[in-house]
Amino acid sequence: MLVVMNANATEQEIAKVVQSIEAKGFEARISKGEIKTVISAIGSKQTDKRDFELLPGVTEVIQLTTNYKLTTRSFQSTDTIVEVNGIKFGDKYAGLIAGPCAVETYEQVDSTAEALEKSNVKILRGGAFKPRTSPYAFQGIGEDGLKILRSVADNHKMAVASEIIDISQIEMFEKYVDIFQVGARNMQNFNLLKCLGTTHKPIILKRGMSSTYEELLMSAEYIMAGGNSQIILCERGIRTFETYTRNTLDLAAIPVIKKISHLPIIVDPSHGTGLRDKVEPMSKAAIACGCDGLIIEVHSNPDCALCDGAQSLYPEQYHKLYTDIKSIAPIIGKEIL
Amino acid sequence: MLVVMNANATEQEIAKVVQSIEAKGFEARISKGEIKTVISAIGSKQTDKRDFELLPGVTEVIQLTTNYKLTTRSFQSTDTIVEVNGIKFGDKYAGLIAGPCAVETYEQVDSTAEALEKSNVKILRGGAFKPRTSPYAFQGIGEDGLKILRSVADNHKMAVASEIIDISQIEMFEKYVDIFQVGARNMQNFNLLKCLGTTHKPIILKRGMSSTYEELLMSAEYIMAGGNSQIILCERGIRTFETYTRNTLDLAAIPVIKKISHLPIIVDPSHGTGLRDKVEPMSKAAIACGCDGLIIEVHSNPDCALCDGAQSLYPEQYHKLYTDIKSIAPIIGKEIL
Amino acid sequence: MLVVMNANATEQEIAKVVQSIEAKGFEARISKGEIKTVISAIGSKQTDKRDFELLPGVTEVIQLTTNYKLTTRSFQSTDTIVEVNGIKFGDKYAGLIAGPCAVETYEQVDSTAEALEKSNVKILRGGAFKPRTSPYAFQGIGEDGLKILRSVADNHKMAVASEIIDISQIEMFEKYVDIFQVGARNMQNFNLLKCLGTTHKPIILKRGMSSTYEELLMSAEYIMAGGNSQIILCERGIRTFETYTRNTLDLAAIPVIKKISHLPIIVDPSHGTGLRDKVEPMSKAAIACGCDGLIIEVHSNPDCALCDGAQSLYPEQYHKLYTDIKSIAPIIGKEIL
Amino acid sequence: MLVVMNANATEQEIAKVVQSIEAKGFEARISKGEIKTVISAIGSKQTDKRDFELLPGVTEVIQLTTNYKLTTRSFQSTDTIVEVNGIKFGDKYAGLIAGPCAVETYEQVDSTAEALEKSNVKILRGGAFKPRTSPYAFQGIGEDGLKILRSVADNHKMAVASEIIDISQIEMFEKYVDIFQVGARNMQNFNLLKCLGTTHKPIILKRGMSSTYEELLMSAEYIMAGGNSQIILCERGIRTFETYTRNTLDLAAIPVIKKISHLPIIVDPSHGTGLRDKVEPMSKAAIACGCDGLIIEVHSNPDCALCDGAQSLYPEQYHKLYTDIKSIAPIIGKEIL
Repeated sequence: MLVVMNANATEQEIAKVVQSIEAKGFEARISKGEIKTVISAIGSKQTDKRDFELLPGVTEVIQLTTNYKLTTRSFQSTDTIVEVNGIKFGDKYAGLIAGPCAVETYEQVDSTAEALEKSNVKILRGGAFKPRTSPYAFQGIGEDGLKILRSVADNHKMAVASEIIDISQIEMFEKYVDIFQVGARNMQNFNLLKCLGTTHKPIILKRGMSSTYEELLMSAEYIMAGGNSQIILCERGIRTFETYTRNTLDLAAIPVIKKISHLPIIVDPSHGTGLRDKVEPMSKAAIACGCDGLIIEVHSNPDCALCDGAQSLYPEQYHKLYTDIKSIAPIIGKEIL
Repeated sequence: MLVVMNANATEQEIAKVVQSIEAKGFEARISKGEIKTVISAIGSKQTDKRDFELLPGVTEVIQLTTNYKLTTRSFQSTDTIVEVNGIKFGDKYAGLIAGPCAVETYEQVDSTAEALEKSNVKILRGGAFKPRTSPYAFQGIGEDGLKILRSVADNHKMAVASEIIDISQIEMFEKYVDIFQVGARNMQNFNLLKCLGTTHKPIILKRGMSSTYEELLMSAEYIMAGGNSQIILCERGIRTFETYTRNTLDLAAIPVIKKISHLPIIVDPSHGTGLRDKVEPMSKAAIACGCDGLIIEVHSNPDCALCDGAQSLYPEQYHKLYTDIKSIAPIIGKEIL
Repeated sequence: MLVVMNANATEQEIAKVVQSIEAKGFEARISKGEIKTVISAIGSKQTDKRDFELLPGVTEVIQLTTNYKLTTRSFQSTDTIVEVNGIKFGDKYAGLIAGPCAVETYEQVDSTAEALEKSNVKILRGGAFKPRTSPYAFQGIGEDGLKILRSVADNHKMAVASEIIDISQIEMFEKYVDIFQVGARNMQNFNLLKCLGTTHKPIILKRGMSSTYEELLMSAEYIMAGGNSQIILCERGIRTFETYTRNTLDLAAIPVIKKISHLPIIVDPSHGTGLRDKVEPMSKAAIACGCDGLIIEVHSNPDCALCDGAQSLYPEQYHKLYTDIKSIAPIIGKEIL
Repeated sequence: MLVVMNANATEQEIAKVVQSIEAKGFEARISKGEIKTVISAIGSKQTDKRDFELLPGVTEVIQLTTNYKLTTRSFQSTDTIVEVNGIKFGDKYAGLIAGPCAVETYEQVDSTAEALEKSNVKILRGGAFKPRTSPYAFQGIGEDGLKILRSVADNHKMAVASEIIDISQIEMFEKYVDIFQVGARNMQNFNLLKCLGTTHKPIILKRGMSSTYEELLMSAEYIMAGGNSQIILCERGIRTFETYTRNTLDLAAIPVIKKISHLPIIVDPSHGTGLRDKVEPMSKAAIACGCDGLIIEVHSNPDCALCDGAQSLYPEQYHKLYTDIKSIAPIIGKEIL
């Protein structure tokens, strides 16, 4: 940590800062510049920099250590590859996950899966528990939904990804799913992250609606600190002043996070835009900037979907998209199965 | 719901919209204006307006029903007053809650409470479970913290407010606290809200960092729908591009929410600004624009606080603030005990 | 305009709204629904919907007419193609513009142009007048810069695009440039837009840092209303809470704006990210989601650039990028010369 | 400037950074910590920190010098007081400015001024040139408006504040106004700021819709660098994801800016909220947190206003507000005439 004193700081003020640094268990070293004095606090303890910002004569306090470690490239320089049912996420592989927003009936999921099988989909997504802004909106069909997903996936030799919304559901989910999905609203549900850190299945961790890159990595750190490093990060749009799209899909997250972390990162263009006709261009864009995969909502009959039909692709749209991104991927050195 | 067709919409496009409206269980009524045709969907079902926005010829779809009901002034025109330990929140009363960010030791909480008693504080706040961005930061001392809070509060004839972070903790919290506090990160933890709706204690519901007024009310609706209407909303700052302050305290939330909802709304200037010397001016501002109370972090020795010391007031600062806001309140027709 | 009354609105309140609508020169038509009454204001006058929102009993006021006309697809259904020096922007063409952020010396611009010529660049960009946040930062070399650009461009058979920052400069710019560039900070400098509307040269109109899609189109409307329809819109990133990148590049703007407007839209990945190593992935993403071109900062020696060197590509990086996007473009039905 | 190397940085990488620092004209000093090496660049030159961020082995680059000087408390520790027509802004004084959004007719301005005179208003505001998002909205009546303002103000012994939108208008404005007002959209119209820096009249500088505190001060720096230090900063709301209010009024700007700058800062609650019934509570809040004044839209007949009637107070509302804030001001040590 560096404490930068202002140009007019007095000797007493400097002494007070040194004393505070030492009281927190650091060693203090003073460097006097031409204009300003900078005091370095040497040591590996955690501290709140605002404690120093409020001291008289202090201009700025700069923290030099990141709060995340295991997720960084300093900790592991090579890409983590997460593999599920033969599909790989990370390094030179981009994996695809598709399926309906919400599980409604066996027939709905099965007809969707049947269509997706033709597009080589190996991982089926579907929501059984739906976190909804309004208490009066469709909330999902619960464990029955997980059973349907499992059964359909087995028939089509697919793996299952589904969103878990509470620690009380972990045991139940263990029975049915291959990938735990943590939604944007739960990105900072730290108890849930800790518990998932002790499981042995891959986790899709979605970026919170107003979370920074650093906070996303810090949440992944909670999971890794528990022992589970099979994490797939997911950019799904952030909240901004622009309301035309449901969220603002922040694709720069892809090259940024791939530079600082070894974890794979995929994109959810369905929630990221909220509009079916934007899913296809944004999926191509995501692949073109190097993402490690996509998770896309597809419904065999989106006009009758109970949830988010407007952002779900028709199976034939998905197939066309699949064809296009398979052509784009090699140009940027990626492989899509 | 109103579906606005664009100026060039064909008869077929209009017919298709009518058919879709009817398929969703609504009655459709067409009004042809000079420039545009508007189709009203009459009925009380819930639907996703984007399903219609994507139909050919449609310009815009406008939803006419709010998704929250119990929390509105249409449902209850008079102010809800929540009363805890003689302190009232709502209508002409502004209540005060104070205490340390985190419970550290019995002595720390007791010395803080002792100081606050002199400023007439009747509700003590303190965190036993701390949701922290980093897994390596101090996470609170757990149930021991709740015990300390209870014991100290009893000694000083105070009530206790503390943050619950998980449904698994409800039973434990019931034993120690008088007010459940739901933090900003949990504002959309809908399972938690549903469970709290079945309890019989007041709930402080903090606005999420990037939640709209409507979403805050919708979350309160989850609790009220469960049967508990003792809800105190809390503005605690939103995330914006300005990073100088920890959050941007959105005080306009006060007059806006008081107009559309009957629930009381208080302000948390400590998290709202993140800086001790901004807490005092923003507290006064909050009272001046009509809020129903404040929740403020105070620590008997903030320089040694394990968490958020930088935003905690010294007890004597709190006392001065208390005196000032007691003078401001009557000017805007409010009473502070 | 539709005025939606709340469920408990009285007859007097409805009458008062009708009267206000008529006083503003509209015809009022009342539709009583099961729950709510909606009053339509028929007429083509401009009005401020907030005037009605404040009337007693009113829940919401919905404006049905967009404020922009000439820029919409209702006005012109086919894509506008802007052509400069053989390079086309719009419809199936994506055009490229490249050059240094700021003009420094003849040698610097010439060596950059010479390198870019090999990558088939036909339009050279460069700033002679630099709007800088700090008064103490390099402000550009002024008219001398425009002369250098013109002279270098002529030598290499290129056209010139440069940013104009004030109406007083129009005559001067007319002498040297082929494309006027309006920067993000000037997107709502309406006097400048009006003046440019009377010129006969193409205009690149950059989206303001916190401007919505609608506001961008409204600013283009100012230019078109003046008679100049040779407008190239430009997405260059918006300001959000994420500070890792200089701005958040909002690529969804591409498919959204192409749907509602006939004007071409290009992307500036240099300002959009602010970091050289993010320019290349985001350029590919922009092409993949269907943009009509790119404007990219390239410097023959970015390490010594006086301005924004950190976001400028080396010429060889640009060449590699050019090769890659030429491969991606046909997959989405676009042609790059 | 401090360049922080990552933990694994090699000697070559460190040497390369040192070389780059020296090439930019700084002296480099290396401090090796236990974990990281930090290289200080000593010197007073301006540089772009991103040039160093991109070098191999660099984790972070920290700039130690603020880019603004004249506006800081280091430059001048005592409050600047701007005085116009006996009204003072700054230090212990809060000044009030009121009047219609736009000048429409002599009668409209005169009747408004007559009403305001009874509330002791000494500075009349009014817009003659209106920057409007839509080219089809009312744009103000131009110089005639300035003449009306001057004439009405003279009759009522008031001073005049009006918004200038272009450098070409400076000479004209000099004839009629006592205070130049720079609108939010022009906060970074640097040519305009430079020109105003050479005038001798006070300037109200409004914060841009998405400008940080630092950028606001930097824009004030442009004016001060030109020689004019009679600057009144103005918080008028920023753009956030919340759309219920027109803008999000960021009142924390008041205590923050008053701490780092000696310039007075006032609040515009009319644009800050966009809704008449929110103006009064937010004005009280602004005074309570220590602002140096208010600029408020008042119209003798807001229902018929050509512009922003919905956010204009009735004169009697203003009078009530004036009475209330006169009671609040002394509690926070301020005086309102």
